[in-house]
Amino acid sequence: MQLYDFPAPTPRRIRMFLAEKGVEIPRVCVDIAKGEQFRPAFRAINPSCTVPALMLDNGTVLSEVPAIWHYLEATYSKPTLLGGNPEETALILMWERRMEFDGYFAAAEAFRNSVPAFACRALTGPHEYDQIEAVAARGRARMLNFYADLDARLATVEFVAGAAFTAADITAIVSVDFAQNAVGISVPDRCENVLRWHERVAQRPSYQA
Amino acid sequence: MQLYDFPAPTPRRIRMFLAEKGVEIPRVCVDIAKGEQFRPAFRAINPSCTVPALMLDNGTVLSEVPAIWHYLEATYSKPTLLGGNPEETALILMWERRMEFDGYFAAAEAFRNSVPAFACRALTGPHEYDQIEAVAARGRARMLNFYADLDARLATVEFVAGAAFTAADITAIVSVDFAQNAVGISVPDRCENVLRWHERVAQRPSYQA
Repeated sequence: MQLYDFPAPTPRRIRMFLAEKGVEIPRVCVDIAKGEQFRPAFRAINPSCTVPALMLDNGTVLSEVPAIWHYLEATYSKPTLLGGNPEETALILMWERRMEFDGYFAAAEAFRNSVPAFACRALTGPHEYDQIEAVAARGRARMLNFYADLDARLATVEFVAGAAFTAADITAIVSVDFAQNAVGISVPDRCENVLRWHERVAQRPSYQA
Repeated sequence: MQLYDFPAPTPRRIRMFLAEKGVEIPRVCVDIAKGEQFRPAFRAINPSCTVPALMLDNGTVLSEVPAIWHYLEATYSKPTLLGGNPEETALILMWERRMEFDGYFAAAEAFRNSVPAFACRALTGPHEYDQIEAVAARGRARMLNFYADLDARLATVEFVAGAAFTAADITAIVSVDFAQNAVGISVPDRCENVLRWHERVAQRPSYQA
């Protein structure tokens, strides 16, 4: 196996997942700052032009974070990050997806629609889409709603999907860091539960991945 | 179990999945045309205010299509719609997600940002977001790119994820029908592979679900 990787938020979700498993796999850097994901060499690997991508030993290429996670969880089952039975797994998938839709996509909207380097690249993938200023503003508004909703959730549970750290926490903390670092939307002081959870998760070695 | 349902595209993905399994479960109609998903009775069931939602016999409520599918696939394993081994499953998850991001979200952008009934509801969930005309236009452009990309894919495989009908075909055909019926963006005549695939999938009994 080898992982097509770059120091950006989306592939960080895979790196943290692997670090939690204690697994290292070979990585190939695809420099998305230089647009390498759009060059023929990478298009032949992943026509969606997205990073991360995981090439299996038989040459099959997986893209999309939940798909890569599924394969890695099946291959390296302990510690589980996607649940130990169908109900647990379904709840983790549900919470992870909410974190992505409400948090990750919000940060991405704010970032990709405002940063000059992403002109014409407001959405991931091979097609060009113009930035829309109103969408950048909507992304910022969504992110504040995300913080408030996550704070309410974390008032009653230790981690996003319940009592244990799971893949849902990975997407949540990567979303928070993305919003903070890339577009300056920090967790409001009043979201004490989010701040406490963030501090705790940031102490895990995988946070550095 | 009972399914919170409505005759709309997102819950149709669950209904088709159940029909392929040959399973019927009790359904409760949540009239999203009347805004019932925002009323306290349903908020207590699913705070995300989205339909579908699946209530298990122990009271656990699952929302989000991939999470519900995961639970249903584990409960009713045959015929499989999510693959028979980790690699197959990961590929189906990857293709299903591409269909959703490139197709379903495109149709949803075009629809929710243009239809008067969705003013202030440009995104799913409990928070209000204004419609953005430029996003409606982007959704239409994305849908045409989706048709072209899907046509290229279906030139080499029978079904979206390969040789077998899977959950990826459900999301794909629901996206096409959503775009055609709700915003009038039909499959272009030149996308012959999409048209042939659509005709074939539409003959399956589950298409009526």
